[in-house]
Amino acid sequence: MNHPSDTSPAELDTILGRARAASPSLAAMCLKQRANGLLNIAARLEESRNELVEQAILETGLSSQRLRGELTRTIVQLKLFADIARAGEFLDVRIDQADPEFVLGSRPDLRRYLVPVGPVVNFTASNFPFAFSVAGGDTASALAAGCPVIVKAHPGHPLLSALTGRLITTALTDSGFPDGAIAVVFGQENGLSVLKDDRVRAAAFTGSFRAGRTLATAAAQRRSPIPFYGELGSVNPVFATPTAVEENAQALAAQYVASVAGSAGQLCTKPGFLFAPSSSELATTIRKAAEEHPQQRMLYPGLGAAYASRRTDILDTPGVSVIVEGSVRVDADDQVWATPTIVATSPATLREYRERLIDEAFGPLSVVVNYAENDNLAELSAEFFEGNLTGTIHLGENEDPIRVRELVDELATSTGRVIIGGWPTGVAVTPAMQHGGPYPATTNVSSTSVGSAAISRFLRPVTYQDAPQQILPEPLQDANPWAVPQTIASRGESLSWGSRGAAVPPTE
Amino acid sequence: MNHPSDTSPAELDTILGRARAASPSLAAMCLKQRANGLLNIAARLEESRNELVEQAILETGLSSQRLRGELTRTIVQLKLFADIARAGEFLDVRIDQADPEFVLGSRPDLRRYLVPVGPVVNFTASNFPFAFSVAGGDTASALAAGCPVIVKAHPGHPLLSALTGRLITTALTDSGFPDGAIAVVFGQENGLSVLKDDRVRAAAFTGSFRAGRTLATAAAQRRSPIPFYGELGSVNPVFATPTAVEENAQALAAQYVASVAGSAGQLCTKPGFLFAPSSSELATTIRKAAEEHPQQRMLYPGLGAAYASRRTDILDTPGVSVIVEGSVRVDADDQVWATPTIVATSPATLREYRERLIDEAFGPLSVVVNYAENDNLAELSAEFFEGNLTGTIHLGENEDPIRVRELVDELATSTGRVIIGGWPTGVAVTPAMQHGGPYPATTNVSSTSVGSAAISRFLRPVTYQDAPQQILPEPLQDANPWAVPQTIASRGESLSWGSRGAAVPPTE
Repeated sequence: MNHPSDTSPAELDTILGRARAASPSLAAMCLKQRANGLLNIAARLEESRNELVEQAILETGLSSQRLRGELTRTIVQLKLFADIARAGEFLDVRIDQADPEFVLGSRPDLRRYLVPVGPVVNFTASNFPFAFSVAGGDTASALAAGCPVIVKAHPGHPLLSALTGRLITTALTDSGFPDGAIAVVFGQENGLSVLKDDRVRAAAFTGSFRAGRTLATAAAQRRSPIPFYGELGSVNPVFATPTAVEENAQALAAQYVASVAGSAGQLCTKPGFLFAPSSSELATTIRKAAEEHPQQRMLYPGLGAAYASRRTDILDTPGVSVIVEGSVRVDADDQVWATPTIVATSPATLREYRERLIDEAFGPLSVVVNYAENDNLAELSAEFFEGNLTGTIHLGENEDPIRVRELVDELATSTGRVIIGGWPTGVAVTPAMQHGGPYPATTNVSSTSVGSAAISRFLRPVTYQDAPQQILPEPLQDANPWAVPQTIASRGESLSWGSRGAAVPPTE
Repeated sequence: MNHPSDTSPAELDTILGRARAASPSLAAMCLKQRANGLLNIAARLEESRNELVEQAILETGLSSQRLRGELTRTIVQLKLFADIARAGEFLDVRIDQADPEFVLGSRPDLRRYLVPVGPVVNFTASNFPFAFSVAGGDTASALAAGCPVIVKAHPGHPLLSALTGRLITTALTDSGFPDGAIAVVFGQENGLSVLKDDRVRAAAFTGSFRAGRTLATAAAQRRSPIPFYGELGSVNPVFATPTAVEENAQALAAQYVASVAGSAGQLCTKPGFLFAPSSSELATTIRKAAEEHPQQRMLYPGLGAAYASRRTDILDTPGVSVIVEGSVRVDADDQVWATPTIVATSPATLREYRERLIDEAFGPLSVVVNYAENDNLAELSAEFFEGNLTGTIHLGENEDPIRVRELVDELATSTGRVIIGGWPTGVAVTPAMQHGGPYPATTNVSSTSVGSAAISRFLRPVTYQDAPQQILPEPLQDANPWAVPQTIASRGESLSWGSRGAAVPPTE
């Protein structure tokens, strides 16, 4: 395969025009057909499993096992969104029957549901070449929502992106989707151009803080601003109580290193900090587990170089001591290979070098913070962490969880997911998953990029007032031909007050 | 009562500190108590009805009847949000039971619900001194969501704002709410300071395009950006088919003038444009109805002056002819009094003077656009209108609605509410209401400021993974002490695939 060159301005304009043109027919497409499109993508990916994984290994350096698992997740995720699309609950259909005796006067017939926002640009991530890339979660949820998707390919795996794009295009064409339902564009500047284009109506991004903030600002400064769902960076603190460490230092240490070093530490939910009381057993096991870890290739040279520099900064910080130094090596192809680096420090040093230390290190590096017996973990968490994807607590086996209630509440304020007794790497794709969190973890605290709730980021509400049945969209019709759930506020029920609100003279 | 002076910097800091301090206890407060607080506010407003309406008349010039109706709506709205708070459906509780046989591997116990975002600043509107002001919709939904509210009072009705603030404070204190659950601040610069303060986590605004865009930019440029729900401006086009005008010119004209001139045209949903074929009967009735309309005081001198200037611009535009000129008069107190101004023009003129004509004129002015027999209304709508709160269509009595299907679809794309056969002024407060729309109508297309769905703008999701029951928030506990709706994904059901998603090795 040839390396894809940057999309030309003319091609870009064609892609944007097609996406816009595809919007109305994609929005009007019946839910079953939408679901079939997603299932068809899943089938195509499954058929090309070997080719996809081989290409991904070449471009990312990730292991075959990891990539096969990720591809399976991606396929399952597409099927999940097919189910969500077909069920139609995401449309949030609300029907208020006309009511001449409404509590504040006559109420018209009102029917509200959620419609696709329009063309979406999806800036893909380097570290999940399947699950957060061309066929990843944002593509699946946007298509399920009925939005055309323009994918900005990550330069870390361009050939895989092109291949995946071709498979999706074929799958959607075979399912009767309009031309323009999916496109892949290449080139950094092109991503920004697409984001700024009036035809694009929402954006999703997973990547670095700097790039994310730049794109978020561009989205807000457009003539017509659009929603921007950016996932920027997270240090995912883990807190172990003294009892947890006393009882279980070895297992904790081993699991910690596995969570830090898996996928060469290139995961958004990698634990960047472990708060634990000093324990020689913990340090020894960490060292042993980390030293046994084979070197892993970083995703691409630029990312490896950035990690190497960040690692040096942390190692050079006064008050930071080495548990295991780890290594960074550059090979003849400029690829960077790393083994885990684990350092230790104190809350006082963290306080003194806050700016330098409390920031994502995207690679197999983590910081153990040795707190003192009388330190209050909830206060430390509040002091050091502003917004994270996750926060984790380890307790002793019989320790009363009420003792960490304050820390749990603090983590629920500053993160999107609070984990007890597990590790943050490991994100289930389910209805109750939340993958998001307060800034700077994301730029939009009310959204998730993983799980079935992700579909809502690409929808907007519209209400029809007193519209005849013939011109109502299917989900709002009394006949309900798509058999979607409809929440109905009946005529007359406001007389008993009920919870059905109030019509309004006068009005805005 | 003395005119409230601008809140001092020290007071402002105290207010922000109290709001932040109130956040955790307000978030943890049981839903019944939250509901009682809202009901208590409603009761206090009802008790002080006469005093409130008298003050509102003095400060806004709106009629007693209009203000009494608006106060009733505001009270009912508070009761509606009390019901919503108590029912707990808004929490969107999702529980995935732990499942060792999950489709992609072992799934942990995951429990997700929506929590309050934290302190909210509510920039109030001049034109609804009750329903969009201190005790208005955004305050009601934010308190129902569990967020402390800092209200930026509108300078058009400062004494009423202070009075309302005192009533709410008393009501909430009596209901056991924490100090800091509500505060009212005065002064334009103070509003911006509050918006920029790290302790504030969301903002709602109803007002002018310029002010709204400035505040939206400030919200996006914060060190830690926050959601900004701005309602900026809308021209609410109305389209009448030739048959509608033929059959019903007199009634249409009279209703149109009533909708344009009610509350001196100072309504966000005022119809700014009526697309109709030329009809002398329509013009004559419009003239007659408008000339019969008594002069009305505009809300405050600055707004009146801006209207006068905008009106002159429109009247002076070449190609614009007068149906009824109306009047603008300034009294000895600098208050502006107006009677309705209705002008006529053509699509060609609208095209030529697009920038000048297609913009909100906040007052009793509207433009009749006389289209030609072979004009396509859907195309005209798409050409001239980008984002509006509402779009309206009038059909003949026996006209086949399918004939306007294309226009309906176009309006569903560019507005938040499509009305058939009615008028946009008149907003029911119900589950299916949508008061919002694509930019520039609002800065956030996925939200509504009216109706029960408004509560979602002040919420964010958080997930608990494998947390023991004792430290789970009440809505997520198996015992469900608050008796809220819980959507449960059962263990084992993924074996039949189902729609329950997929757990993930490996993961981000």
